[in-house]
Amino acid sequence: MEIRAEIIEIAAAAKQAVEYLSEASSKAKNEALEAIAAELTKRSLLILKANAKDVECAKKGKKSKAFIERLALTKNRIKKMSDDVRSIIALGDPVGEIIKLWKRPNGLMIGKMRVPLGVIGIIYESRPNVTSDCAALCLKSGNAVILRGGKESFNSNKAIYKAICAALEKSGFPNGCVSFIPTVDREAVSVMLGLADYIDLIIPRGGEALIRSVVEMSKIPVIKHYKGICHTYVDEHADMAMAEEIAFNAKVHSPSTCNAMECLLVHIAVAKEFLPKCVKRLQKAGVEIRGCSRTMAICPGIKKVSEEDFATEYLDLMLSVKIVDSLEEAAAHIARYGSKHSDAIVTNNFQNGMKFLKKVDAACVYLNASTRFTDGNEFGLGAEIGVSTDKLHARGPMGLEELTTYKYIIMGNGQIRT
Amino acid sequence: MEIRAEIIEIAAAAKQAVEYLSEASSKAKNEALEAIAAELTKRSLLILKANAKDVECAKKGKKSKAFIERLALTKNRIKKMSDDVRSIIALGDPVGEIIKLWKRPNGLMIGKMRVPLGVIGIIYESRPNVTSDCAALCLKSGNAVILRGGKESFNSNKAIYKAICAALEKSGFPNGCVSFIPTVDREAVSVMLGLADYIDLIIPRGGEALIRSVVEMSKIPVIKHYKGICHTYVDEHADMAMAEEIAFNAKVHSPSTCNAMECLLVHIAVAKEFLPKCVKRLQKAGVEIRGCSRTMAICPGIKKVSEEDFATEYLDLMLSVKIVDSLEEAAAHIARYGSKHSDAIVTNNFQNGMKFLKKVDAACVYLNASTRFTDGNEFGLGAEIGVSTDKLHARGPMGLEELTTYKYIIMGNGQIRT
Repeated sequence: MEIRAEIIEIAAAAKQAVEYLSEASSKAKNEALEAIAAELTKRSLLILKANAKDVECAKKGKKSKAFIERLALTKNRIKKMSDDVRSIIALGDPVGEIIKLWKRPNGLMIGKMRVPLGVIGIIYESRPNVTSDCAALCLKSGNAVILRGGKESFNSNKAIYKAICAALEKSGFPNGCVSFIPTVDREAVSVMLGLADYIDLIIPRGGEALIRSVVEMSKIPVIKHYKGICHTYVDEHADMAMAEEIAFNAKVHSPSTCNAMECLLVHIAVAKEFLPKCVKRLQKAGVEIRGCSRTMAICPGIKKVSEEDFATEYLDLMLSVKIVDSLEEAAAHIARYGSKHSDAIVTNNFQNGMKFLKKVDAACVYLNASTRFTDGNEFGLGAEIGVSTDKLHARGPMGLEELTTYKYIIMGNGQIRT
Repeated sequence: MEIRAEIIEIAAAAKQAVEYLSEASSKAKNEALEAIAAELTKRSLLILKANAKDVECAKKGKKSKAFIERLALTKNRIKKMSDDVRSIIALGDPVGEIIKLWKRPNGLMIGKMRVPLGVIGIIYESRPNVTSDCAALCLKSGNAVILRGGKESFNSNKAIYKAICAALEKSGFPNGCVSFIPTVDREAVSVMLGLADYIDLIIPRGGEALIRSVVEMSKIPVIKHYKGICHTYVDEHADMAMAEEIAFNAKVHSPSTCNAMECLLVHIAVAKEFLPKCVKRLQKAGVEIRGCSRTMAICPGIKKVSEEDFATEYLDLMLSVKIVDSLEEAAAHIARYGSKHSDAIVTNNFQNGMKFLKKVDAACVYLNASTRFTDGNEFGLGAEIGVSTDKLHARGPMGLEELTTYKYIIMGNGQIRT
C-alpha cells in the first residue's frame, strides 16, 4: 500500500478507538495493562532477539557507546519495562474526575470534567522502553496512541508493540488503541504530522534536531522541550555542604540527561569559601570547568567561559561557572541563557528562596534540591510521556493528568438566558 | 518606520513588560483596573466621537444593520465597558496560586504554581468592547497583551486604547503592558503571527474566515473556535414544557451568537407530543424550520433538511430538526455534525443525563439548560478572552485562569538523586 494511505488508515483506526477507550472502565484498562506487563515478560526472548538485530546494526553503523547502551535490552531491562507498566496500574485514573464544581446564582451547577485528549502521536528516538511507557500511559488516560520510534530500534519497538497488541486483543480492546508506524521511511512522519483531523497532539522525544524538524512540519499542536540548560545558584545564605552535594549530583549523576546542571552560579560573598572545594571535587569526577574571570581568579588553571558556553547544553562532563553579585543577577542570567527547563537555588534564607521560586520562569524551579529530580517518576506521576518547556497545556514532566483535557458540564433544572 | 520593525518593537516592549506584570501585586493591578474604568467614563465623549467616524464609514460602506449595531457605541455601552472592567477587579487574582502540593517519600515538596502565560496577541473583528475586556483580563492575569482590532472599528479601538494607556501611566505600569497595532495594514498581522520568540499565545475572535487565516499563518500557538453548531436533544424522558422553553431560548434569544442552537434532536417517543407545539412557537418567532422526513410527517409544510443543513452554522432564525430513535443516535449525530462547542440534553432520567454528559465530546455539555449560557460572564469567570473548541490548554469560555500556566516548584532540604 502507498505510505500515505497506510498512515491515514492507521490514524483513522486510532480515532475510531477513542470512543471505546474514553468510555473504558478503570478496571478494564488496568486489566489490559496487567496483560501487557505479563506479555512483555512472556515474550522476553523474542524481544531480546529483535533487539540483538538492532544492536548489531548499530555496532556496524559505528554508533557511540552511549547510543548502544541506551538501545540494548537485557532480561532485567524488560522486567523493568513490565514493572513500569504495572506502576501505572497503581496510579489513579484521571478520566471522569470532576476538577471543579460551582453553583451560579441562577442555580446552574458548572463543573470541569477530565476527559482524554483523543489521539496522541509520539515520535521518539532509540530508547525501546518509550514504546511500552507511552502505550501504557496513553491507555490508562483513555487516549489512542500512534508510535513512531527511531529506525535504529525498529525491530525492538516492533517486538514490544506486538506484545502490547497481543495483550490488548486478549483484553478485548480494539486494535486502534495502540498503533505502530510499520516503516522507517521518513515520509511516514511527514504524512502523520499533517493529519490534524485525526491526531490531537504530537509529542516528540529526542535530540533538538528531531524536535525542530517535527515542529517545523507539524500541522498538529506539539508539546516538547528542545533542551535543558539547567542552572544551580548558590546563594550567599546557602549551606555550603548542601550546596556542594546538590551541585555535584546535578552535574555528575547523569550528565547526558536534560535535567543535568550545565551552569553553576555562585554569590560573590561565598565564592571563595565554596568554589575551590566544589570545583576540585567536580574535576576529580572528570568534569571540565569553564569559569568567568572572577572564578578563574579563585580557581586557577580552569578555562575561560564564553558567551557560547552559557548558551550550550553540554550533555557531558562539562560545566560553566559564573560568580554573581546578587540573586537578581543570577535570575537575569537564567532568564537570558536558560531553557525554561529546571533551575535551582540553594539557600537557607526564606525570602531569597521564595523570591527565586517566583522570579525564575522555568517549568521546574527548585529550592535546596538537585535539578535531576525533573522526571515523571521522581515527581510521583509514573513514567512520563515527555517533558515540556512550552507554556500551553502542560509544563515539566507530563503524566496521566497532562494527557487529559476537560469539558464543562453544566447541570440545571430548566434555566434559560434572559 | 517600516511595518515589520514597528511590530517587532511593540512585541519586544510587551515581552519586557511581562516581568513587571508577573510580579505586580493584586492591589496594584486592581488599582490600575479601577483607573482604566474611570478613564473610560471620563473619556466617553472622545470615544463616542471616534466611534461616530467608524459608524459613518461603515454606513457608507453599506455594512449590514447587525454589523453597525455591534459597532456603534453609546454612553450606556461605554458605561457597560467600565462596569465590565470593574467586575474583573472583584475576581480573584490567579497568579501565584498553588494549585496542588504534595510530598514525596524522600521529603521533597512538589507543587504547581499558577503563573502568567506571558504575551498574548488578540486578533478580533469589530466589537470595540473587546479592546477593554481583553486588556483588563490580561492585566489582571499578569499578561502583556497586543491588540489588533478590525479596521472598521480602528478609531473606536484607538480611543479606548488611549484611555487605557493614560490609566496605566497614572498607575505606574510600563507602556508595554497593553499595546495596540497602530495600522490597519494586513502586513502587520502576518508579521505579528511570526513572532514566536515574543508572543506566547494568539487568540483570534471573529468569523470563521478570519480564524482560518490566522491559524494558517501563525507560528505561535493559537486557541480558537471556528464555529458553533450547537444541538439540543429532547430525550424521551424530558419534561415537555422545560424542553420547549430551553429549545426556544437556545434558538431565539440571540440567533447570531455561536452558542445558539442550530439543530434540534427529538426522541421518537415524544416527537408527536413535543414537536407540533414547539415548531409552531418557533415559527411564530420567525424561525424557518427544516426537518427530516419523520419531522415533516408530524409538522406538515416545513422544508426538508439536507446533509448540508446539519453541517451549517446558520447564525440566523433557522433551525434543522431531526427525530432520533435513541440517545445513542443523538450522540452519534452530534459527533458527526457538531463543532464541539455546546450541546444539551433535556431529560428527567438520571442515567440518560449522565450518559449524555459523558458521551458527548464538546467544550460545554448541558443537562436541562439552554446552550446560550456558554459565556464567560454566565459561567462566573468575568468577561471572557475567547471561547475554545480546541482540546489543548483551555476549552469553552476562557477567563483569568485560562490565561495562566503553571510552573512546578520543588522544595527540599538537600535532596539529591541516587
